[in-house]
Order: sequence, then C-alpha cells, then structure tokens
Amino acid sequence: MSAIEHKLPSKDRILLAARKLFGENGFHRTSMSELAAGADMSVGLIYRSFKSKEEIIEAIVCADFDRKLAEFESLRQRLVDGELTVRQTFEELFQKTIEENREALAFDILAEGFRNGRVGRTIDESCQRFRDYLRQFIRTANGGLNNEELEGATELALCCLFGLGHRNISKPRLGAVQTARQSARMVTAALEGL
Amino acid sequence: MSAIEHKLPSKDRILLAARKLFGENGFHRTSMSELAAGADMSVGLIYRSFKSKEEIIEAIVCADFDRKLAEFESLRQRLVDGELTVRQTFEELFQKTIEENREALAFDILAEGFRNGRVGRTIDESCQRFRDYLRQFIRTANGGLNNEELEGATELALCCLFGLGHRNISKPRLGAVQTARQSARMVTAALEGL
Repeated sequence: MSAIEHKLPSKDRILLAARKLFGENGFHRTSMSELAAGADMSVGLIYRSFKSKEEIIEAIVCADFDRKLAEFESLRQRLVDGELTVRQTFEELFQKTIEENREALAFDILAEGFRNGRVGRTIDESCQRFRDYLRQFIRTANGGLNNEELEGATELALCCLFGLGHRNISKPRLGAVQTARQSARMVTAALEGL
Repeated sequence: MSAIEHKLPSKDRILLAARKLFGENGFHRTSMSELAAGADMSVGLIYRSFKSKEEIIEAIVCADFDRKLAEFESLRQRLVDGELTVRQTFEELFQKTIEENREALAFDILAEGFRNGRVGRTIDESCQRFRDYLRQFIRTANGGLNNEELEGATELALCCLFGLGHRNISKPRLGAVQTARQSARMVTAALEGL
C-alpha cells in the first residue's frame, strides 16, 4: 500500500485492498486477516467498518454500479444535448465498458449474486436502470419500434454490454477502440435496419 | 441421486453431483466429502477418477464446451445445406444459449479460468473455435465486410452469445423465444446494413 493510499479513510483502504486480493485469489479464498494485512490495519478495525466479507463485496458492487450509472447519465445528457449521435453514445459506452476490465473479481461477484440476496438485489435494480437508459438510446435511434422490438433490442444491448465488459476471458483479437467502433456501428445499423 | 443416476459410470455420477453442488454452494465452498455424499460414493472412489476438485471443474468445462461446439457444427452444416438462413442459424444458436441457464456454476468456472491455467486454456481454445464458426456465419450474411468489420462483428457476436448465456443475472423481462428472435433479427439487420 502506497503512502498516498495510506492517507485514505479506512473504508476506502479496505475496499482497495479487497478489490486487489479478491481479484487475485478470489472472494472465498481471501481471509479477513489477509485483508487486514493488505489494508495495513488490524482485523478489529476492519470489523468497525464492515460486519463481514459479504458486506465488503456489497460495497464494491454498489460502488461499481453507481459509477456505471453516472456514466450512463452523462452519456444520456450529451445525447439529449445533441453533443453525441446515438452511434457515438454507444461507442463511448462500449469503449468504457471494455476498458474497465476487472473480470476475475466480477465473476466472483456474479457467482455471489446468485447466492447472496443483497448482492443479487443490487445487480437486479442496477440492471433495470441500465435498461431504462438503453431503451432511451434505442428510441432515439429508431422511434418506430414496436414493444417486442424495443424490449428485444434493450435485452440484446444489455447482453452486448455484459459480453464486452467480460470479453477478456475469451482472449480477444481486436483491440478495445476498434471493437467499440465496430460494435457501435453494428448496433446502430441494426436499430436503423429493423 | 435417483435410481437411474445410480447406474451411471462413477465419473458421470461425480460430475452430476459436482454440477449440482458447485452450482448451489460454489466451487470453493464444496468439499470433497460433500461431493462424495452427493454422488453416493466414498471420497477414495472420487480420487480414483479425479486427482482434485480442479480436475473435476476442468472436466465440466471440457464437456460444456464440447457440447457447444457440436451445436455450432450442426448449425454450420444446416446453414451450408441451405436448411437454415443466417437469421435462423443465429436464432437457434441464441435460443439454445439462453436456455442453458447454469450461471452460478458458470461464473465460478469463469473466475477459476482466470486463476487456473488449464481451465483458462480450454476456455481460450474453445472461444477461438467459436470465432471460426461465427466468422463463417457472418461471411454468409455479408461477404463484403473488410477485415476490421469482420473481426468486429465476430467479437460482438461472441459477446452477444456470452451475454445471452448469462442474462439471468439481470432478471430479464423478455422470454427466451422472443429475445432469441429479436436478437437474430438485429444481428442480421446489422450485418446486412454494414
């Protein structure tokens, strides 16, 4: 832990160490005492901020989804203001998603989402809000879609986003910039061609 | 374990129990003795078939990818024979993928793929073969794509497949049949519109 990181509030230091250790070794294989060593504090101090490892993973999930929702809101605003076309909106969204790149941790979180009610609810609620944004982007591209087309496009866009955000597991051949560009072109062509 | 399952070879019984227990409780939280109880055999008998839990997860990954590759090969054959259009090929592929639906286990496997070299290699090799099939489907839809377009479309199709195969985490609103139909329409419209 660097000198700068040392000056962070203890909650942030714990989350920083947790992301690193959960990502490297997995959520279940990281003990509270390893976490304490990583955050350079006592186990007791960790328990003053978080009641359990589950609470730490919940905090990571919330922070990640809040950041993603802020990204969506900023893109929506720029689309509404005419600063971005729909294609550019999808391209930025895709590129940011590809670049996030924290899969090992993300997969552990997702597995946990199926088994931990609170993590599952946070994922669920955030996905509903992602859908609302995607639906708005899609309607801007093509206002004439019927309900099944609109919902189908929304589901597929969410799947693209999820797939792009986890694509490193497949050892992709095409870089982030090109993949985001071509994906945005395809999504726009699809919406205009329906 | 049912009477029919009891007559399976011990390797298959172990894999069946492992899928169930890893899916419910996670890979790391399932012990060899729980696995033995689930498969209704001794721990020693499990060790005669598999050296470790890691070897069991490798066998599950291989079986799943082999089944998916067989699906791809059958679709390719029917596309080449003119039995399916490109849209229908994608629709069947998507629908099968959505219906597989074993996410909790899959996320554990994917997390493991980042930390276990052999699982990672199997995932990697299979993804390269999936890309070969997808590239062929895409070329059939539009033979005029340049290299970046072809690779971009292949990456996005792989991402769609991955996203659709794991969409249950997002509590989807649209059913499998409609989602597969609309997704296949969109992918085809995108490829024809590029």
